[in-house]
Amino acid sequence: MGQTIGRWLRGAALLPVALTAGVLAYAQEDDLATRLAALEESVNGSASAYVDNSYLFLIGGIIVMLMAAGFCMLEAGLVRSKNAAMQSTKNIALYSIAGLMFWLVGYNVAYPSATMLEGLVGVPSLDAFFWSGGDLSVQSDAGYAPASDWFFQMVFVATAASIVSGTVAERVKLWPFLIFTAVLTALIYPIVASWEWGGGYLDTVWGFSDFAGSTLVHSTGGWAALVGAIVIGPRAGKYFGKQVHPMPGSNIPLAALGTFILWFGWFGFNGASQLAAGTAADINAVAQIFANTNMAAVGGVIAAMITTSIMYKGKIDATMVFNGAIGGLVSITAEPLMPTMGQSVLIGGVGGILVVLSVPLLDKLKIDDVVGAIPAHLVCGIWGTMIVAATNTDASYMGQFVGVALTGVFVVAASAVVWLLLKYTIGVRCSLEDEEMGLDKAEIGLEAYPEFSRG
Amino acid sequence: MGQTIGRWLRGAALLPVALTAGVLAYAQEDDLATRLAALEESVNGSASAYVDNSYLFLIGGIIVMLMAAGFCMLEAGLVRSKNAAMQSTKNIALYSIAGLMFWLVGYNVAYPSATMLEGLVGVPSLDAFFWSGGDLSVQSDAGYAPASDWFFQMVFVATAASIVSGTVAERVKLWPFLIFTAVLTALIYPIVASWEWGGGYLDTVWGFSDFAGSTLVHSTGGWAALVGAIVIGPRAGKYFGKQVHPMPGSNIPLAALGTFILWFGWFGFNGASQLAAGTAADINAVAQIFANTNMAAVGGVIAAMITTSIMYKGKIDATMVFNGAIGGLVSITAEPLMPTMGQSVLIGGVGGILVVLSVPLLDKLKIDDVVGAIPAHLVCGIWGTMIVAATNTDASYMGQFVGVALTGVFVVAASAVVWLLLKYTIGVRCSLEDEEMGLDKAEIGLEAYPEFSRG
Amino acid sequence: MGQTIGRWLRGAALLPVALTAGVLAYAQEDDLATRLAALEESVNGSASAYVDNSYLFLIGGIIVMLMAAGFCMLEAGLVRSKNAAMQSTKNIALYSIAGLMFWLVGYNVAYPSATMLEGLVGVPSLDAFFWSGGDLSVQSDAGYAPASDWFFQMVFVATAASIVSGTVAERVKLWPFLIFTAVLTALIYPIVASWEWGGGYLDTVWGFSDFAGSTLVHSTGGWAALVGAIVIGPRAGKYFGKQVHPMPGSNIPLAALGTFILWFGWFGFNGASQLAAGTAADINAVAQIFANTNMAAVGGVIAAMITTSIMYKGKIDATMVFNGAIGGLVSITAEPLMPTMGQSVLIGGVGGILVVLSVPLLDKLKIDDVVGAIPAHLVCGIWGTMIVAATNTDASYMGQFVGVALTGVFVVAASAVVWLLLKYTIGVRCSLEDEEMGLDKAEIGLEAYPEFSRG
Repeated sequence: MGQTIGRWLRGAALLPVALTAGVLAYAQEDDLATRLAALEESVNGSASAYVDNSYLFLIGGIIVMLMAAGFCMLEAGLVRSKNAAMQSTKNIALYSIAGLMFWLVGYNVAYPSATMLEGLVGVPSLDAFFWSGGDLSVQSDAGYAPASDWFFQMVFVATAASIVSGTVAERVKLWPFLIFTAVLTALIYPIVASWEWGGGYLDTVWGFSDFAGSTLVHSTGGWAALVGAIVIGPRAGKYFGKQVHPMPGSNIPLAALGTFILWFGWFGFNGASQLAAGTAADINAVAQIFANTNMAAVGGVIAAMITTSIMYKGKIDATMVFNGAIGGLVSITAEPLMPTMGQSVLIGGVGGILVVLSVPLLDKLKIDDVVGAIPAHLVCGIWGTMIVAATNTDASYMGQFVGVALTGVFVVAASAVVWLLLKYTIGVRCSLEDEEMGLDKAEIGLEAYPEFSRG
Repeated sequence: MGQTIGRWLRGAALLPVALTAGVLAYAQEDDLATRLAALEESVNGSASAYVDNSYLFLIGGIIVMLMAAGFCMLEAGLVRSKNAAMQSTKNIALYSIAGLMFWLVGYNVAYPSATMLEGLVGVPSLDAFFWSGGDLSVQSDAGYAPASDWFFQMVFVATAASIVSGTVAERVKLWPFLIFTAVLTALIYPIVASWEWGGGYLDTVWGFSDFAGSTLVHSTGGWAALVGAIVIGPRAGKYFGKQVHPMPGSNIPLAALGTFILWFGWFGFNGASQLAAGTAADINAVAQIFANTNMAAVGGVIAAMITTSIMYKGKIDATMVFNGAIGGLVSITAEPLMPTMGQSVLIGGVGGILVVLSVPLLDKLKIDDVVGAIPAHLVCGIWGTMIVAATNTDASYMGQFVGVALTGVFVVAASAVVWLLLKYTIGVRCSLEDEEMGLDKAEIGLEAYPEFSRG
Repeated sequence: MGQTIGRWLRGAALLPVALTAGVLAYAQEDDLATRLAALEESVNGSASAYVDNSYLFLIGGIIVMLMAAGFCMLEAGLVRSKNAAMQSTKNIALYSIAGLMFWLVGYNVAYPSATMLEGLVGVPSLDAFFWSGGDLSVQSDAGYAPASDWFFQMVFVATAASIVSGTVAERVKLWPFLIFTAVLTALIYPIVASWEWGGGYLDTVWGFSDFAGSTLVHSTGGWAALVGAIVIGPRAGKYFGKQVHPMPGSNIPLAALGTFILWFGWFGFNGASQLAAGTAADINAVAQIFANTNMAAVGGVIAAMITTSIMYKGKIDATMVFNGAIGGLVSITAEPLMPTMGQSVLIGGVGGILVVLSVPLLDKLKIDDVVGAIPAHLVCGIWGTMIVAATNTDASYMGQFVGVALTGVFVVAASAVVWLLLKYTIGVRCSLEDEEMGLDKAEIGLEAYPEFSRG
């Protein structure tokens, strides 16, 4: 009490000072207010995190775009030289068609404005076809440049289409293949994506977790490829009774280049699937994803080397090593953030082993997968998706299984309809003479290597 | 009135509080001021937008740099094997010479310190030769790291030089070609660039609009290539009377790889030509440019496929498809921001058709363009520049035409002088024996593929 | 005095105003304080510089990762076709093993928690093996995402390993080579790196300066390659008495592609070694490093062209030009920031000349370096490191020499132990029959180009 009075007395003694202070405070405050307003404008006008997020999509997007070149080199290297120009052309064509169809239809199907039947059926809004970026002068509410996200999603579609291309190589006709690609990228893939990334059935009902698309992208491509391989049938002369006639790839260094480019692009594929980079937590996550993604590929390579070395008495199989890298990468794609780096090596390593074991299995079933895309993308895609539940507590084995199974059933059914429709209308397979001669001469009128004679 | 009095009374009643408030306010304000100052220092010291802008140039720059590899692969794949090592070496050499000359002379010519004759003649400052980045410890007034811009401009010069290399392949001698490259990158291209990007005649007088260089880079390279092809003449045996003897490329997968790498690099070429990325509006624009650039290439590919398929009875022509992609990309380069995505498909699609139609036209004129660079870069460069006026209201068809025509007249004249000077002094064309034997053995003493026999 | 009184009087006259002001000030301040707090939260929560720094490592890291593809293409192009698949596979395998070993052991050895003997011996902490990124939800004290730095360091290790691969090609057995790679990347390179980048002996005692690793990475790889070449011996038939039997590379365009990819990756190698990009000074430096790095490669190419042209009577040697680029790049790696652009051209140019002069010297010593890695990485690494003292005043020639010499002595000794141990246990060299037949068939069971007959 005495203290309080003392304070009031001191306060009274300070009266003149207080008065002055009041006046000065007012003046100074004006200055403070002005400075604060200026600062607010500067800070609030700063698009720092917005730019960082958009850069993630843009940089991630272009290196995923380069994966189209990776697939092209891998496939051109693994087909025989008489089909290498065709395979190259097909890859440029499919990337183009994927982009066109995703713009026309796919994006709107993958990210519908409303859903029905617990999210199983998306209802695209009619005015969202022909996607456009909207008003470029303002920050989008999403927190990143609209077209940066569109671009990133589009290159994912192209990846799914690239997977099919390798499996059905050397005997599929160009135009039917491109029509299949158009349906895959306009409807089949976008419908699957809508169930999870579009906030549909798998996401809301099952808590399905597929970070960057082991199932949504890679299994989808893999299932479509599997059905294609069955409908189209094996290359002439590939299987005699129980014997498998090897048809070695014509340019292994190109296939190695393709593998490296795919590996490079995968940092964008998985890293930019974090979808944001403007905070410490987000960029930390992106960085960890880079490291884990690399370790999984490392695991796939080393596992494939050791496995083939054991199986083939000390020799390692180059194409298995390449597919081991890809298998490892696919395996980590469903969950590249949660595993430790050691777990990433193991997840990728199992992927590498699965690749090596699946290739002869497919041959036993007389399913002719020219580049080994089914083992790497489908088998490892399933494995990677299932094992998410081991490191991500938000996911359950049951939920993961439902995602894998639903995707499988739907893509197999839809692909079968399209492939069979094509088969019984315009035909999907080239004539035996064309196959013998090579599709380069038959379909695109030039040879990949006209001056290098066949050994 | 009573209210006011009441307020004063309440004010008087609040006197002790007011006094205290005055004192507290003063103390608190000190704290506010300190905090504000700290914040100001932090915000003003932040180089966020400056870094974002610089990153745009640096990332854009390196992927445009990789376009040199793209041109190298495209050209090495489209020449015959006996010239593939020469073509590879030439591409590394021309990229190097372009960089050196642009540093020594070109940058200063392209961005002169003053201009004369309405900006037709730039006056470089003598102390600006041997460009240097200046004081690295401070923010440059331009809003980005000085060397980031220099680097980005430099890789553009190299692109112009790469265009010429493909057209005159298989018969030009190495050193004369490199001398031409030196003049092109030190003077011809920089003078053209100064008219627009250096703030000269086309920019100020005609409001010419060429966002990323359909005319300034691609047509310039194309005109120089055209004159080169005419001065040097066609390859021996290419034309017999009215007959055209096809000389197919030796390695189509490499050409496909080159196409993909060029496509990849084009995101930097067009995207980073936005010149800034530190605001929402800028990064939105960069993202939209990425999407539009991709759609134009898509249009070019699909148009070339359909056109050749019609012309060649169902067969598509692989090299036309590759050049269709490039033609589409060149077509959108003059204005990759304003068109909608659908317009981008159309602009690129027309480019693809123009490529397919121009190739036989050149053959009819007996102008031997080994890789099809003139259709893709010159014809599509003109088309892309003219069509700017349709989507960008700041541009006029007349202004665009003047830009196209002035560039054409100047580059043709300047190139003709240089090519002819070279022709009548040291000679530009190898001997017939060297051409027969191949330039690999003749000029660089090794073969591209010494172990692969010619078919 | 009168003035003061006057002020007090005016102050008194302002009494009611002052009172009001005091009250208003208090109220307004509350508002100011709230706004300031909000702004502080926004600014302090901003990770702008943290993200910029992390992006530097991530983007730099992936393009250095792509250098693995560059080495692969360069080497696959410069070996004979019978070894090209092996060389491709080896490059994928070594990149994988380098990543695994660096994670298991190397990072912890390179950045020890304590040091002994003036920093010559690092003491890794036992719990730091199996590196992990720690808590991803918070900003790391280092100022960048932990895994971004780890990733960037890891790709450097892989570079050192890639250098060895080219030199010992065409006769080394796969598994012994991979074991050597494991030791190199787990221990030899990390120990060298610890002396400088880990804050050890060379850094603290000698002020040794090696910005991005001319010595630490490139000479280390070069010394290990040199010892390997000596221990393993030249390829069968390479040297007859004083005669050198040329064994030309089988695919020069691939080698050119590799050169371009390496050049591309080097912007990450040198640029991201600035280690930060969040301030104007840092990004200015990164940009300047890009420009200087490019100019040094330009110098290397042009010098190699001119030198070979003089030596070989007008012909330039393609592989020398490729290695000239690499030699120029290695030469600038020790100090890519301080030189002017002209000095960069000169530093790189001397590197290009050194490459051209060193290749025949090695042949005279009968040291068989298949791809010319020793001239480009070791000789130019030494040159580049020594010349740092000319442009960076923090470095001394003596300090640089000690760094070069210590690295040389240690890496030679350690490599010799490992190579000799391998030689006298499992053997390092394939049988003469395998060498004749080619390692493709002998070790990996398929051929690089099975359809292209040997000329």
